Amino acid sequence: MEDPSGDPIADLITSFNELNPSAVEELDEEPSPLEFMRYVARNAPFVVRGAAAGWPAVRRWDDAAYLREQLAGHRVNVAVTPSGNADAPTAMEESEGEGEEEEQDNNNLVFAKPHEEDQLFEEFLSYLTTQEKNLDGRGGGEEEEVRYAQTQNDNLRHEYSSLYSQVPPSIPFARIALQKLPDAINLWIGGSRSATALHRDSYENVYVQVAGAKHFVLLPALCQPCVNERALAPASYSRGENRLRLRAEDRGDRVPFAVWDPDVPDVRATKYSHLARPLRVTLNPGDMLYLPAMWYHKVTQSCSEEGICVAVNYWYDMEFSGPLYPLTSFVRSLGSQATK
Amino acid sequence: MEDPSGDPIADLITSFNELNPSAVEELDEEPSPLEFMRYVARNAPFVVRGAAAGWPAVRRWDDAAYLREQLAGHRVNVAVTPSGNADAPTAMEESEGEGEEEEQDNNNLVFAKPHEEDQLFEEFLSYLTTQEKNLDGRGGGEEEEVRYAQTQNDNLRHEYSSLYSQVPPSIPFARIALQKLPDAINLWIGGSRSATALHRDSYENVYVQVAGAKHFVLLPALCQPCVNERALAPASYSRGENRLRLRAEDRGDRVPFAVWDPDVPDVRATKYSHLARPLRVTLNPGDMLYLPAMWYHKVTQSCSEEGICVAVNYWYDMEFSGPLYPLTSFVRSLGSQATK
Repeated sequence: MEDPSGDPIADLITSFNELNPSAVEELDEEPSPLEFMRYVARNAPFVVRGAAAGWPAVRRWDDAAYLREQLAGHRVNVAVTPSGNADAPTAMEESEGEGEEEEQDNNNLVFAKPHEEDQLFEEFLSYLTTQEKNLDGRGGGEEEEVRYAQTQNDNLRHEYSSLYSQVPPSIPFARIALQKLPDAINLWIGGSRSATALHRDSYENVYVQVAGAKHFVLLPALCQPCVNERALAPASYSRGENRLRLRAEDRGDRVPFAVWDPDVPDVRATKYSHLARPLRVTLNPGDMLYLPAMWYHKVTQSCSEEGICVAVNYWYDMEFSGPLYPLTSFVRSLGSQATK
Repeated sequence: MEDPSGDPIADLITSFNELNPSAVEELDEEPSPLEFMRYVARNAPFVVRGAAAGWPAVRRWDDAAYLREQLAGHRVNVAVTPSGNADAPTAMEESEGEGEEEEQDNNNLVFAKPHEEDQLFEEFLSYLTTQEKNLDGRGGGEEEEVRYAQTQNDNLRHEYSSLYSQVPPSIPFARIALQKLPDAINLWIGGSRSATALHRDSYENVYVQVAGAKHFVLLPALCQPCVNERALAPASYSRGENRLRLRAEDRGDRVPFAVWDPDVPDVRATKYSHLARPLRVTLNPGDMLYLPAMWYHKVTQSCSEEGICVAVNYWYDMEFSGPLYPLTSFVRSLGSQATK
């Protein structure tokens, strides 16, 4: 392992670690707008256990029959992948890629977009719950395709509008502090094999668990030099001959994307990855997470007894004035140079 | 002029300029704690015209006779320099330095500390007002020594405690938002020849003009690559043979200090200096400036009709958690490398 002492990038990451908590802060109740703004100013995450326990969504949506009734006859967009790897760095199969075999090699990694199709909501839900029962009972399911309703396009106010009245239209402390309404309210419905690969968004994010659990791994924006961002060729799954086939896209820009996984820290690491100190937090039903703008997050999930994992998140556009955004871009430029 | 396009440091400064206001924001009235916290979060300065117009200090301290009465018989610490250059990069005179003659040369620059001595307050004040009248009337004063009461050690609560009751003990919006009391409340009394050289502090700073005017030139922390920070040898003025003499200190660490002056932009510039976009704001009596932590500031001043310039500032310790402090240090490391 290279000794990065005296290296400004290494100093940046270690000094951040020294000056900041090593765990996500837990609040007893929702913050006031001013208290929230202090976290925004520090770009620091927190979790409020049970903050949303009283929401109609949290009280009702764990009941698959209830959801089925609310959305009977609706068709919803479903992301389909072989292993839950929607929008994730994925090794091209040898027959499709360039024949590289080395585990750590980046050359055959592509940015895999899911196959997307509309499905009847009740069929989608039955698929999820049946697969989850099989997985639980070790009755198979490991080889089946994975389905995930994860359109991050304000779907709760559009695709799932019949459910929208069961969540608040905004999070009061965030609305008052940030002086804006959410750009998007997203509903996520999936199973235990779906994951969201490490990435970041230019949104202040309030994430609420509704059913099942989500397991977050978090890294601050300045850990960019740890995440091994690569320009991946885009590829998409499509259905063919009874299996999903991943094909490189003929056109389409390469996607800059983190290929380091903090849960597999020795693979595809940069010389800075070992300096990262990921924060881990699990959200259970009713828990609320403030995920600050530009923080990297990887998310895995567990299902409720009904066999589903459901969450809602609120995206508030981040503040682009001030030093955070340009400094984050600066670290990215330097980090990309240093880890080429 | 070197073209720095494609240079991450140049991109950092220009993208900050594009995303941020080109003037200090002006508020009609003091912000609420939440409104203030939004500025802290953006690390963005603002001025509130007349916010302190009702303070007893602002109503009374422009009257030199009143001040003299309040502090009669008190001895106060006075910084004495030949030209108002206390704590400023200063060229060693040839006989004392290494004989370098070139104007732009950095080698003969030292960090000049003032001669400090205790003076009877009434004598100090008479010196100021008399000098200022002479300067105004062109009756001389340009060659006389410059005196400035500028001890930044919480002097209003100690050295000048008889005046302290005439200002608030804290600024309410800052106390509530930052959840702390000021580390220091500083009183500044000087004349029009004193200046404070470009520097920065790790404090959230609320600056209130009491008498006369202060002229601020401000640069965000990420302009470090523009300010030409150099490790200057320390030197001090002392009285000798009817004049002030600047002597290098035998011991004492070098002082890292900005040697670029945004008011003389072509001298001692770095390749990035021309990218800086200084914000300028003048404070008149009763005006209040929020000067965010780590912003560079150069301050010059003008006197009231009484011939004095008086100000008070509140220093609140900055938040060291979050990304601002480590990222500021990171820019400094990279900036120092790039402008060596």
